[in-house]
Amino acid sequence: MAKQTAARKSGSRGGGTLQKIGALAEGVARAAHAGEAPSIEVPTRAKSNTTWDRKRGILRMGDATQTRELFNLNQAKGFMQTVLHAAGIKELLEADKTLSLRAMFYKGLHTIPGTKEKTFADQDESDAVLEDLEVTLGSLREELHVFAKKAGTMVGNITIEDSGDEIDCRRMGSGGYAIPSIVEPDVIRFRKCDAKFVLHVEKNTVWSRFNEDRFWQQHNCILTEGGGQPPRGVRRLLRRLNQELGLPVYCLLDCDPWGHYIYSVIKQGSISLAFESERLAIPEARFLGLRAVDYQRCDLSDDVQIALNDKDIARAKQIAAYPWFKDKPAWRREIDQLLRNGFKMEVESLITKDISYVTETYVPERLKAKDWLD
Amino acid sequence: MAKQTAARKSGSRGGGTLQKIGALAEGVARAAHAGEAPSIEVPTRAKSNTTWDRKRGILRMGDATQTRELFNLNQAKGFMQTVLHAAGIKELLEADKTLSLRAMFYKGLHTIPGTKEKTFADQDESDAVLEDLEVTLGSLREELHVFAKKAGTMVGNITIEDSGDEIDCRRMGSGGYAIPSIVEPDVIRFRKCDAKFVLHVEKNTVWSRFNEDRFWQQHNCILTEGGGQPPRGVRRLLRRLNQELGLPVYCLLDCDPWGHYIYSVIKQGSISLAFESERLAIPEARFLGLRAVDYQRCDLSDDVQIALNDKDIARAKQIAAYPWFKDKPAWRREIDQLLRNGFKMEVESLITKDISYVTETYVPERLKAKDWLD
Repeated sequence: MAKQTAARKSGSRGGGTLQKIGALAEGVARAAHAGEAPSIEVPTRAKSNTTWDRKRGILRMGDATQTRELFNLNQAKGFMQTVLHAAGIKELLEADKTLSLRAMFYKGLHTIPGTKEKTFADQDESDAVLEDLEVTLGSLREELHVFAKKAGTMVGNITIEDSGDEIDCRRMGSGGYAIPSIVEPDVIRFRKCDAKFVLHVEKNTVWSRFNEDRFWQQHNCILTEGGGQPPRGVRRLLRRLNQELGLPVYCLLDCDPWGHYIYSVIKQGSISLAFESERLAIPEARFLGLRAVDYQRCDLSDDVQIALNDKDIARAKQIAAYPWFKDKPAWRREIDQLLRNGFKMEVESLITKDISYVTETYVPERLKAKDWLD
Repeated sequence: MAKQTAARKSGSRGGGTLQKIGALAEGVARAAHAGEAPSIEVPTRAKSNTTWDRKRGILRMGDATQTRELFNLNQAKGFMQTVLHAAGIKELLEADKTLSLRAMFYKGLHTIPGTKEKTFADQDESDAVLEDLEVTLGSLREELHVFAKKAGTMVGNITIEDSGDEIDCRRMGSGGYAIPSIVEPDVIRFRKCDAKFVLHVEKNTVWSRFNEDRFWQQHNCILTEGGGQPPRGVRRLLRRLNQELGLPVYCLLDCDPWGHYIYSVIKQGSISLAFESERLAIPEARFLGLRAVDYQRCDLSDDVQIALNDKDIARAKQIAAYPWFKDKPAWRREIDQLLRNGFKMEVESLITKDISYVTETYVPERLKAKDWLD
């Protein structure tokens, strides 16, 4: 505990956020003392307030805000919930502890005195208020000491320090280092890194194939996976590896709308959490495969085909219309080809060529030829 | 690669299984040469062939078998699939590589020559054949070099060796060591262990709370989580910690039928995979909580109550009727109390007492009082 506390305190995560919560509370108190209606301005988290910053290559939140007033029947509960969670986070920061989203829901949950009403109807309501607090305070959820379920693993040519422990990711066996939910610089520090790039794969079963074949050792890289759609901890870690160490990030994902969407979120951020793109998106991330053309190019058998259903087709068209895909002829061709093929393909289907085709042939050839989508 | 191969080869996992596959193939070949109908005897994986071994405290598979003949229209496909996957596993073992269940499906998938029929309709069919092979060969799936999605994390007072890499679980930061799918002795070896017990929690968010509070250091234990229902890798590792190092295993799970079921599978094994109980079940595992009586005992507020729905009630009664619960008055009382309460409770709801109530009060008190269910 002592060590971890020391590691945290040396960072500035808690301090700045505490000040911001203090300022929020003071604003409310000042209004109350002045006989005015206390209110909080919460930036609007909606598609209507999301803009595509083409120059920076990320989604950004606009300037629209919503007011939450205490003395407005429609806004009073939201106001109360926001202040309640702000107080809870202050307590977390002062105790230098972190809590899960689920635990934060329980922490804020109680019956409002004099009524039969609960402070939160369910965890969804609590989660939404925490997202409001993120944008209101301009602090990432991680800076509020709140985390979600973790997922994702890492191995490779890098040593990191996690809460004061030195972890050599070259010596993590078959299991790997479990990427935590919070990877801010006061928790995770980068030490010796020899890796030249990061290979990020979608599934941990594929990751195991690459790790078993010691791909990261042979190709001098870092190997990560995010259990499907990577959680924020994984995205933030990839972003830090890219920004702070200058490592290119290559993504190996399925050839289907879900794979394209995962890539899009890693690269540009997500519409629902555009605020976080500033610190989570990796505009330089590249899509290494699978590509729709691989069916011919790799001479795959029809065993790899999984027919697109109506939902897939609708989703593919939706993704093709994203401004960040629409402007890119190569991506338009990719999605067109997927739709013309009429089928999706999984990375694991490359096993039909050979057990280690994906690690020994597919990825090395793509990397050598710099053959990826951007 | 070289290191991992060496580690594997020093074990006996591959060798014995290869011999068994050889014997299976020879039986088929001998019948063919003798002009007899080739067939395979597959032990029956069904509730009807599952018995409760009260003395040993585990579920066991009975002696019933099913025959799969090549020249029987209803059995020919199953026969072919079994031989096909047996050949695929032989290839894996000889190459000293492992594959996921999904990849094994792709590996075995092709169009049967002269027909339009595929060898497997879907992955479920492939998975079932792999389970048949497990019981037919008397080898765990892990010994067939086949793995499922991994989940689960470990920290604590133990050093292990994974594929030749020494991993000190005392220095794994906030992330932890990601427990691999295959933890057989030729991959994972136990080195220095100071821990006196294992605390296994259900969710990784709860695990993070315990790790952050350095519970394993203060209480000299190993801390694991299995992402809900623990995958086989986690169960097998817990079993090895229990059997080989003599460590008691305490489970901290939600107070609901799902938590009880998770405990039951850890302790006695599962009905659908009774064969594996011999090497996965931990008859000594104990249920530390949450307990239905904790609502009163810990003076919890009604915020922690989640109403039981009809499905929960049916499930609770089903579990109460399991022979391994039925014979235990304490468990009968526990499930009765849950039903009388009319609500379930999550471990995370203890946050309503205090951020670290679960790590600083709840678990230490239960351990000290030896207050658990067996």
